[in-house]
Amino acid sequence: MAIHHFDPTIYYTAMGTYPPVLHISDGDTVQTRTVDARGQDAEMRVVAERGNPQTGPFFVEGAEPGDTLAVHFDRLRPNRRIGWTAASLAGNVVDPDFVTSLPSERGLAEWEVDLDAWTATLVKPETKLGRFTIPLAPMLGCFGVAPPRGQAISTATSSTHGGNMDYRGFREGVTVYFPVFVPGALLFVGDGHATQGDGEIVGTGIEISFDVQFTVRLLKGKKIGWPRAEDDDFIMTAGNARPLDQALQHATTEMMRWLEEDYGLDASAASILLGQCVRYEVGNVYDPAYTMICKVEKRLLR
Amino acid sequence: MAIHHFDPTIYYTAMGTYPPVLHISDGDTVQTRTVDARGQDAEMRVVAERGNPQTGPFFVEGAEPGDTLAVHFDRLRPNRRIGWTAASLAGNVVDPDFVTSLPSERGLAEWEVDLDAWTATLVKPETKLGRFTIPLAPMLGCFGVAPPRGQAISTATSSTHGGNMDYRGFREGVTVYFPVFVPGALLFVGDGHATQGDGEIVGTGIEISFDVQFTVRLLKGKKIGWPRAEDDDFIMTAGNARPLDQALQHATTEMMRWLEEDYGLDASAASILLGQCVRYEVGNVYDPAYTMICKVEKRLLR
Amino acid sequence: MAIHHFDPTIYYTAMGTYPPVLHISDGDTVQTRTVDARGQDAEMRVVAERGNPQTGPFFVEGAEPGDTLAVHFDRLRPNRRIGWTAASLAGNVVDPDFVTSLPSERGLAEWEVDLDAWTATLVKPETKLGRFTIPLAPMLGCFGVAPPRGQAISTATSSTHGGNMDYRGFREGVTVYFPVFVPGALLFVGDGHATQGDGEIVGTGIEISFDVQFTVRLLKGKKIGWPRAEDDDFIMTAGNARPLDQALQHATTEMMRWLEEDYGLDASAASILLGQCVRYEVGNVYDPAYTMICKVEKRLLR
Amino acid sequence: MAIHHFDPTIYYTAMGTYPPVLHISDGDTVQTRTVDARGQDAEMRVVAERGNPQTGPFFVEGAEPGDTLAVHFDRLRPNRRIGWTAASLAGNVVDPDFVTSLPSERGLAEWEVDLDAWTATLVKPETKLGRFTIPLAPMLGCFGVAPPRGQAISTATSSTHGGNMDYRGFREGVTVYFPVFVPGALLFVGDGHATQGDGEIVGTGIEISFDVQFTVRLLKGKKIGWPRAEDDDFIMTAGNARPLDQALQHATTEMMRWLEEDYGLDASAASILLGQCVRYEVGNVYDPAYTMICKVEKRLLR
Repeated sequence: MAIHHFDPTIYYTAMGTYPPVLHISDGDTVQTRTVDARGQDAEMRVVAERGNPQTGPFFVEGAEPGDTLAVHFDRLRPNRRIGWTAASLAGNVVDPDFVTSLPSERGLAEWEVDLDAWTATLVKPETKLGRFTIPLAPMLGCFGVAPPRGQAISTATSSTHGGNMDYRGFREGVTVYFPVFVPGALLFVGDGHATQGDGEIVGTGIEISFDVQFTVRLLKGKKIGWPRAEDDDFIMTAGNARPLDQALQHATTEMMRWLEEDYGLDASAASILLGQCVRYEVGNVYDPAYTMICKVEKRLLR
Repeated sequence: MAIHHFDPTIYYTAMGTYPPVLHISDGDTVQTRTVDARGQDAEMRVVAERGNPQTGPFFVEGAEPGDTLAVHFDRLRPNRRIGWTAASLAGNVVDPDFVTSLPSERGLAEWEVDLDAWTATLVKPETKLGRFTIPLAPMLGCFGVAPPRGQAISTATSSTHGGNMDYRGFREGVTVYFPVFVPGALLFVGDGHATQGDGEIVGTGIEISFDVQFTVRLLKGKKIGWPRAEDDDFIMTAGNARPLDQALQHATTEMMRWLEEDYGLDASAASILLGQCVRYEVGNVYDPAYTMICKVEKRLLR
Repeated sequence: MAIHHFDPTIYYTAMGTYPPVLHISDGDTVQTRTVDARGQDAEMRVVAERGNPQTGPFFVEGAEPGDTLAVHFDRLRPNRRIGWTAASLAGNVVDPDFVTSLPSERGLAEWEVDLDAWTATLVKPETKLGRFTIPLAPMLGCFGVAPPRGQAISTATSSTHGGNMDYRGFREGVTVYFPVFVPGALLFVGDGHATQGDGEIVGTGIEISFDVQFTVRLLKGKKIGWPRAEDDDFIMTAGNARPLDQALQHATTEMMRWLEEDYGLDASAASILLGQCVRYEVGNVYDPAYTMICKVEKRLLR
Repeated sequence: MAIHHFDPTIYYTAMGTYPPVLHISDGDTVQTRTVDARGQDAEMRVVAERGNPQTGPFFVEGAEPGDTLAVHFDRLRPNRRIGWTAASLAGNVVDPDFVTSLPSERGLAEWEVDLDAWTATLVKPETKLGRFTIPLAPMLGCFGVAPPRGQAISTATSSTHGGNMDYRGFREGVTVYFPVFVPGALLFVGDGHATQGDGEIVGTGIEISFDVQFTVRLLKGKKIGWPRAEDDDFIMTAGNARPLDQALQHATTEMMRWLEEDYGLDASAASILLGQCVRYEVGNVYDPAYTMICKVEKRLLR
């Protein structure tokens, strides 16, 4: 149950079987930092290539294909005062005929992030929103493990191994579960957002560097198909694919499996429960793979 | 500002330009009843064909194509104790390979609806859920106006005129806005659910007959493209299409139009706001057209 | 086996249970005319509202729900020299980021149709194509029968009843089969194209008025789910839906049913045959419902 | 213009920046062999892991990111007498409600491939098809180059770098063009099919090992976005994504770019031409990314 402090010096823009930056054990905690989506650190220095550069990979001792890795987010906090977002909706989230009505210049907006006030405030460009201020809701947009089959998958997208899911519910206090595909699991973390709307429909949250603390747990012999998660109130599954319909199919199927395997429900009971109680949340509808979250309240499962 | 009591004797399973059952005026209130999706009334008598039979149409005096009809749901309450749901997930919401793992018998489940306790309790079949009890959250699954172009559109589906959207947020206290396509608008209401999960993924909510009270308002010369709605906290738009991606495109485009026309934002300001603050909710992913809801908190718009 | 000459004076832009313009019998032939998609007849007079106005409906004596109506296209010929097309790709057939690269003006192009030379030649606008000449391949874009459930469905779209499928394979010599949903079937024909590319990706073929001759046959008690067709070489099924994936699912399912019901194959044999021999063709990817065609060569079925 | 004979001893089931097996030059020809999708060679020995194991990568001297690699298939021939296919349609190509009607056992079918008669004949299982015989149409299902961004992408799927496109038109005599993403391009070839239906809807063609001869050409400074191809009669572009609608968008966009860059057409002329003359073909609708082909006849471009 060691606590590791890790200062990254190398970053990856794909998740693959790369040399580990640190070996950790079941129960260990890691305190580290992530750069923003364009590779800028807490001092706004560009230290990595753009495209969700990742801190890691962390090798979890004893993790083998067929296990599950649990990652608890102990602390996820922006560590600088300047964040940025895109300033135009993505073309794919509006009707094709409306694309020409989107802003023609695709510049960036800048936000001041105030951890004391727990707010983000739009500082430029000048718009009719003025000094638009919204609460912080820090989250990680992109994190996951090395994928199967010797693959190295771009941090622009996501799949069964996690990746760029851009779901605003992956925040402090949540535990995320990943299938282990390679020895050591090889965990990556990055792409902090000070907050983000559903769907990440401008293609960004408020992109910013983070202080990250997480604790891992290894579930030997536990096999799952897609990322799962839980917090105090909900269990959740993530499906990553296009179209959104297919992402929803993956998430719903994984939830059915979870309810049947771990909560003692058969297909009929699980269907009746989900039919009247399921909640869906849209992770992203911007990245190559979209993300749909399927949620069930824990109090329904007692 | 009359209050009309209307007892239906005829029901329609398509929304079209049918003879009005009642003429009402801007500001009027109607108290009426709806039967359940299989045509059963408060006494469980089958009085209509199955498939979301509708009460109406109500002719709103002065409504012309190009106007908007506002319908405020004053009161939406189940009016009997027995509701029913399907007992198996629909095949289209799980992975194709998982379809054969769904319950083979596609029977119905029965629920006891207790308005005093404000709960629904599963009474059969016997499952591991036991006497599973959940809170009521009454809503209308299917309602809308006559569509354009002389069409009569099945109450199994939905489009710009509303219809079978099966969104659990269309509940008491909400105002829904429809484009007017024909003289009198011709409003239909039906398909009450005592509650429903996101997506209506078993193909039903808890289907039950309702007492319905609504009040109409006519917005002359106000033109909208898709159903809009609001409650105390949110403004909302509904997109109805397949795949879910396209439903989301329609809803997002309509929200952009709303923000630009009525809230004084240009495309850039509206993009920045939606990018970090939009919320999506899944109406249904079962009907021929899926429904996606795009929401913005009103307090962000002051 | 009468031959009817029918001169239309009324046109419909939805397919529904409208008063028949002519009663015909099993085996009868009808010679009639259709106007173009904007309602222009052989003399370029606007005689109907735009949006694929239909000639009909024709009531087929003895046709009842649960039967199948066979429509053989004896003759499909443009009957004037001027046709028109749209001059820009539809926004939905290119990448969202490419939409702003499409032509900004959405004008029409004009084509000279020469039945003797069997060609269509672009006459305006002036483009780098010059007097671009292509062979004729006349077809009907929109035709079908009255849909079920009292519906009247816009001739902009398509479903199980046919409608605006815009498939270039529905040409002279082909027999199309429709499910009968209402007494008399109520057949509509319209929307002739002098030729059309796959997908109707500008939103039009070469739109033109037609002389049409067809012969009907009634298959009592034969029940089908989606439009089917055949010519000398192929049997074909049409699926109409969005996304294209779902249209393909409908067409493939209907083909499996056909092979199993009428060609004596079980699911395994039909799978093996389709797996190595199926052909798909894209009808349209422009209308509210897309159309996918599933084809099998007849010589494989002997 | 050397001719290289290369005997593979190592195979990859992802396309990535692996050590080259051979260095070749612009204009060189390679004669080599590929194993079938399960890793079986011409003698039916399992010599590689299953999942479209690839021969290569071949390093093309001088190829740099931003160039285009042309690969001409001089000769694509099965090199043994036994091929195999799956014997059930994939669940995703039929209606969800039809999935339970597919064959319950998912076994393999065996085919005898006769290069002299140029036929494939079903030899087992016994079905109503009997000794079903169809012509050969040899093609490569999976081939491509190393993808960008340090990725290694599974040979189960496809993207801008090519990969598992499973398009029956990639046959002898065709030239395929790939974007070059890494130094040397790193070309992979594999997954020969003796024939295949459109869509690869059972998940396989007639899988078999191949003798392959190809000739490469390097187009320095020529930049393309998606795989392109041509044969004597057509130019073609491939879009790889889900849903099929998006694959079609990619392919159509790439074709517009090709027509505008290399054939001197502006957006309007290219739209008019494609609108009436484009052809689409379905590559696969089985793999994680579907493949749509967009084609234009060369004689229209003179």
